[in-house]
Amino acid sequence: MRTDLTFIEGGVTAAKGFRAAGAYSGIGRKPEKPDMALIAAELPCAAAAVYTKNKVKAAHIAVMKRFLADGRAQAVVVNSGNANTCNADGEEVAENACALAAGVLGVRKEDVLPAATGVIGVPLPIEPFQKTLPVLAEQLSETGSSAAAKAIMTTDTEPKELAVRFQAGGKTCTLGGIAKGSGMIHINMGTMLCFMTTDMAISSEMLGKALREEVPGSFNQISVDGDTSTNDTLLILADGLAGNPEITGPGADYDAFADALHALCVAFAKKIAADGEGATKLIEAHVTGAPTLETARLVSKSIICSSLFKAAVYGADANWGRILCAIGYTPADFSCQNVDIAMSSPVGEIQVCRSSAGVPFDEDLAAAILKEDHVIVEVALHDGTEEAWAWGCDLTHEYVTINGSYRS
Amino acid sequence: MRTDLTFIEGGVTAAKGFRAAGAYSGIGRKPEKPDMALIAAELPCAAAAVYTKNKVKAAHIAVMKRFLADGRAQAVVVNSGNANTCNADGEEVAENACALAAGVLGVRKEDVLPAATGVIGVPLPIEPFQKTLPVLAEQLSETGSSAAAKAIMTTDTEPKELAVRFQAGGKTCTLGGIAKGSGMIHINMGTMLCFMTTDMAISSEMLGKALREEVPGSFNQISVDGDTSTNDTLLILADGLAGNPEITGPGADYDAFADALHALCVAFAKKIAADGEGATKLIEAHVTGAPTLETARLVSKSIICSSLFKAAVYGADANWGRILCAIGYTPADFSCQNVDIAMSSPVGEIQVCRSSAGVPFDEDLAAAILKEDHVIVEVALHDGTEEAWAWGCDLTHEYVTINGSYRS
Repeated sequence: MRTDLTFIEGGVTAAKGFRAAGAYSGIGRKPEKPDMALIAAELPCAAAAVYTKNKVKAAHIAVMKRFLADGRAQAVVVNSGNANTCNADGEEVAENACALAAGVLGVRKEDVLPAATGVIGVPLPIEPFQKTLPVLAEQLSETGSSAAAKAIMTTDTEPKELAVRFQAGGKTCTLGGIAKGSGMIHINMGTMLCFMTTDMAISSEMLGKALREEVPGSFNQISVDGDTSTNDTLLILADGLAGNPEITGPGADYDAFADALHALCVAFAKKIAADGEGATKLIEAHVTGAPTLETARLVSKSIICSSLFKAAVYGADANWGRILCAIGYTPADFSCQNVDIAMSSPVGEIQVCRSSAGVPFDEDLAAAILKEDHVIVEVALHDGTEEAWAWGCDLTHEYVTINGSYRS
Repeated sequence: MRTDLTFIEGGVTAAKGFRAAGAYSGIGRKPEKPDMALIAAELPCAAAAVYTKNKVKAAHIAVMKRFLADGRAQAVVVNSGNANTCNADGEEVAENACALAAGVLGVRKEDVLPAATGVIGVPLPIEPFQKTLPVLAEQLSETGSSAAAKAIMTTDTEPKELAVRFQAGGKTCTLGGIAKGSGMIHINMGTMLCFMTTDMAISSEMLGKALREEVPGSFNQISVDGDTSTNDTLLILADGLAGNPEITGPGADYDAFADALHALCVAFAKKIAADGEGATKLIEAHVTGAPTLETARLVSKSIICSSLFKAAVYGADANWGRILCAIGYTPADFSCQNVDIAMSSPVGEIQVCRSSAGVPFDEDLAAAILKEDHVIVEVALHDGTEEAWAWGCDLTHEYVTINGSYRS
């Protein structure tokens, strides 16, 4: 990480010019759990987004794509508790919610972007938006990030807010965001829901380029359960209040922004994986020595996706054969003949496999390592020079409990 | 199913000329649980096999491939409790076990095929084979199928034996087998372990052709946990004692054999899925109206692989949005705009989604349907004429318990 890049407080309202709020609208199933958020900028912003590759898509994605055709936005209205997916009138409801938000904010309807997360296939009523958006508009605040982060949670156990500060174009710039995501997480070109704001001056084209380049190595490398959501959306708004010369092409300033974006995305990725449904542990897989970057990414993701390995980590069982098995069924072309595997956590590190065969190891130390809540698997393929990370979590009884009764 | 095809008792020893036995050798972790099986034919047989596509393969697969180069075999020696995978001396041990079996049976070493299942990466000693093979040779019996089926079980809760009788070439022919498989089941070109025998006269080339054509629609459509094993092996031996004219090419007799093989493979597939680790329910997904057979297979398999849907079935929650989600992330090109979904079990059937949108349904009936131990999901894509089945099971607390402590 660059030395001038610092994590700071403030989340999605850390950057200059952004306010947010969250409230209970009645859409969600849990009484009084906030379920609607509003994020608003003082000025129209350059904006870009990436979405799920699932062929079944939430209604908000079609509307957001349409409204983002001009690369401009000023506000986001999000609900939890209902995915607004597979509903005949889904796009109409999403658009009407934007119109209501535009009314209370005094901006163009097309500059408000909708998003939703929750149960699929249940019609989303408009009344909660009519009732709650005026309240949210009144509550908008420069310290409202936490309220918004809480309002977009579903099975998340904690709100996810992050922000970084860095230098570019002779100015101090800020990039921050909020995210949610706990189940149905196997991201493909977006995340469950992540909203970022920055006060950098940057064109929507360069924002989009930065997102598309960043996502494959961070958000797309997370998996909780192998299920790619219908709603994954990562959106970024840039209002230019940092005062830097607008970034319209490659160069040092764009690189500074890309590095800040990378730091934030990786940090969000870890938070989402660690808060996977029922998870007790964050699992990081680091694969080195791969023939291509794509192979390194596939192998690391295959490891953190293995139900068997995830359950073994839950039970603190150093069953490394399951790691080699998951490496072996990765759909990529590389050698499995010379694989080294080590596991580590804050209490120690242990080598369990060398040249694709087991080595004797201290079972007590291995169990102690795996009992920590942050476990790193280091895999060296010795078949090239590329490397990648992936992030997942253990598979627990609680995951089954949560998902055996999600709707009820 | 053809009318002349009947399921019968007898498993892997149902066909004429085959004997089997099972015993405790000490390889397995569970004291006195039989862990070694021997299957032997009176005569040298035509033989063919298909194996896992995992790049990390059990040592027995390399040895079996070498020994099967001549399309001939007469016996199989199998151990559970140790996968003999990722061991530096794995092939040597497997070959030595075959030599020991050949000695006690009085056949060529190259006509004995090895197989193994169990923990990966633990060296497999030869002593249990030295001690137990003479006992097994003595116990070989025409009613020994059950003993062999029990000896190859790992986390299976019940032995898996099946046999069918049919007519071909003017003779009554029999095809039978035993299988094991409960966890690490996401089959790719073979099954965990399945051994079949037939008294048909058929060339090894036609046996191999029949296996390769059959497996993509049956065994490869099972998944318990998405983990493709390193050891998957499906082997078939044909001794010709039925007396039919030898099948050496396509024709009515080959078709009769292929139909019998299909009936047996689908029945084994369902048994393996229903006995998935921790499973309380068999889930069958039937997809119709797909543009290609491959798409129908991918979509049906995607449904039974979804952790979220599997957990919902466990909880008897008719959360059909998760089915549509799993359909949507299937890596194939088809329309998701006009999907119908119904769920059924012996107590009734209920439509939950029409034209990709929810329809009101009786939640009590839905819960009653999903509480049964055999649930069928019917999906109509309305985008073509191809169809396929896939078989899986629910995701339960017990799956996590089993896999949190597999080695210990």
